[in-house]
Amino acid sequence: MSKIRIGIAGYGNLGRGVELAVRQNPDMELSCVFTRRDPSKLSILTEGVPVYSINDAAAHKDDIDVLILCGGSATDLPVQGPFFAELFNTVDSFDTHARIPEHFAKVDEAAKKGGNVSMISVGWDPGMFSVARLYGSCILPEGRDYTFWGKGVSQGHSDAIRRVKGVKDGKQYTIPVESAVEAVRNGEDPELTTRQKHLRECFVVAEEGADKAQIEQDIKTMPNYFADYDTTVHFISQEELDRDHSGIPHGGFVFRTGRTGVDKETKHVVEYRLNLGSNPEFTSSILVAYARAVYRLSSEGVSGAKTVFDIAPAYLSPLSGDEIRAKML
Amino acid sequence: MSKIRIGIAGYGNLGRGVELAVRQNPDMELSCVFTRRDPSKLSILTEGVPVYSINDAAAHKDDIDVLILCGGSATDLPVQGPFFAELFNTVDSFDTHARIPEHFAKVDEAAKKGGNVSMISVGWDPGMFSVARLYGSCILPEGRDYTFWGKGVSQGHSDAIRRVKGVKDGKQYTIPVESAVEAVRNGEDPELTTRQKHLRECFVVAEEGADKAQIEQDIKTMPNYFADYDTTVHFISQEELDRDHSGIPHGGFVFRTGRTGVDKETKHVVEYRLNLGSNPEFTSSILVAYARAVYRLSSEGVSGAKTVFDIAPAYLSPLSGDEIRAKML
Repeated sequence: MSKIRIGIAGYGNLGRGVELAVRQNPDMELSCVFTRRDPSKLSILTEGVPVYSINDAAAHKDDIDVLILCGGSATDLPVQGPFFAELFNTVDSFDTHARIPEHFAKVDEAAKKGGNVSMISVGWDPGMFSVARLYGSCILPEGRDYTFWGKGVSQGHSDAIRRVKGVKDGKQYTIPVESAVEAVRNGEDPELTTRQKHLRECFVVAEEGADKAQIEQDIKTMPNYFADYDTTVHFISQEELDRDHSGIPHGGFVFRTGRTGVDKETKHVVEYRLNLGSNPEFTSSILVAYARAVYRLSSEGVSGAKTVFDIAPAYLSPLSGDEIRAKML
Repeated sequence: MSKIRIGIAGYGNLGRGVELAVRQNPDMELSCVFTRRDPSKLSILTEGVPVYSINDAAAHKDDIDVLILCGGSATDLPVQGPFFAELFNTVDSFDTHARIPEHFAKVDEAAKKGGNVSMISVGWDPGMFSVARLYGSCILPEGRDYTFWGKGVSQGHSDAIRRVKGVKDGKQYTIPVESAVEAVRNGEDPELTTRQKHLRECFVVAEEGADKAQIEQDIKTMPNYFADYDTTVHFISQEELDRDHSGIPHGGFVFRTGRTGVDKETKHVVEYRLNLGSNPEFTSSILVAYARAVYRLSSEGVSGAKTVFDIAPAYLSPLSGDEIRAKML
């Protein structure tokens, strides 16, 4: 049987993660990598796989079954999503929640025009967390949702720290408040403010001679990012930051709590929890699993934009229906 | 818009749970209940809904969009599943894991003959736990699965206790070993024997004058049921059993632990956990959510047997694709 040929567009953390994930799936192979950098200067992990300029992607249409878009949601994917959806079956990890309907509409139009299947917003949130929220709300229609993130590195908040005057480098961890998680898990259905759900912990390398008290004050009062949270700021050296905080762990919890019974006397708690050693490596593992679903749907003649909600779990598995029923049901 | 008309076949704990769950879903209504008992002697919770003999079910073919089969897996469903699949769209909770392929094949043949959609093995295990296992194994192909059950009442083990000489009544709880769950959650990938995964706790009402030491011995050494476990036996009065152990709580954990990275240096842990106040009420809530999926698939002209693996999450929701993308993705 021929393997599913995967292309990667964008070779950052996510692109490298996809490259590694493809190796863990024997029914797939990496066909090529597209980059915005000079292809001759990019060396990738897999020997013998060509690197091309992203501008030449269209010329390699017949070498790829599914192109995985590994750019960022802010500026790359809004453009690349619709552009590539017309040329290839695609999977992206677009994660700007508020702009998902707009992104879906544009990708859907392009994918239908090209006769391709294009999945948007694949990953863990949006993605597996969304699936957990949907299953939970359908099974327990009278109930409440809670999503907690962390402990993990927030790229956006780390960037925000680094923009503060006097800051040389920094990392920010989002941490769920343990007592809040415990109250939800115990079925107490608490009302939780933003401050009651998450803590923010910052590790900051100050520039020489910088006013640390002022830096701390500037971070803690920053609107949207930190002002609504209990924030801790630790000043450390660049060596300590590089040594102790170079990982990109993440994770979180999705809860659905609900009631059933004649007088709603019965409580149920559903919890989906992730504890991830590497956010980009886990995200790219999900992208690759959904690439299999995209390939199959496309083989069936389907076209248009899809999300994780539209994909039956069986489409993710390399095993046959008989096998998954016998082994996993 | 017309409501989805649900029928119930079998009015025990599960049937009553379905009746209650239908009330929580405004796009559904209960059409009728079929029973093996004398219909004139069965009074159900919902006023105005007719109760018929299960032998007359075929006559009510046009009153029902989806029939939910609420019989047991040992003797009812192997017969009722294929029989009703030819007449109605159906959902069942067949949970004899080893016989699922056989049940699927028989129901599939009948459902295709009748032009119906019939879902088998819906519930939480098999069911939501199976979905968690499948997603986990597809996202982390190099990893391990762990399923723990409980704390919860096992009907089969409670029945086994009650068959012991000198036992008047009894209840058995399956309890996951906390340290084992914790080791898995911490990513230690432990090898666990049967004894290391679950404890069994029995509450027993002895007949007057019975030999309690002998009862305890007979329970603890019972092959398959108790011999491979650390089992605790508590003797209590019938009043205590009725007062403290009349509920049917259950739940459990599905873990997928796996590794990614260049040298598999990165660990990830995925956990799906249920804490259920009532096993039959939660199970029936799942059956009802999947009845919506069955109705939709049938409306699209699909026929044959399906499992939870075959159903895209969006089919479970009363909301439109636009709505779930905007609100839940």
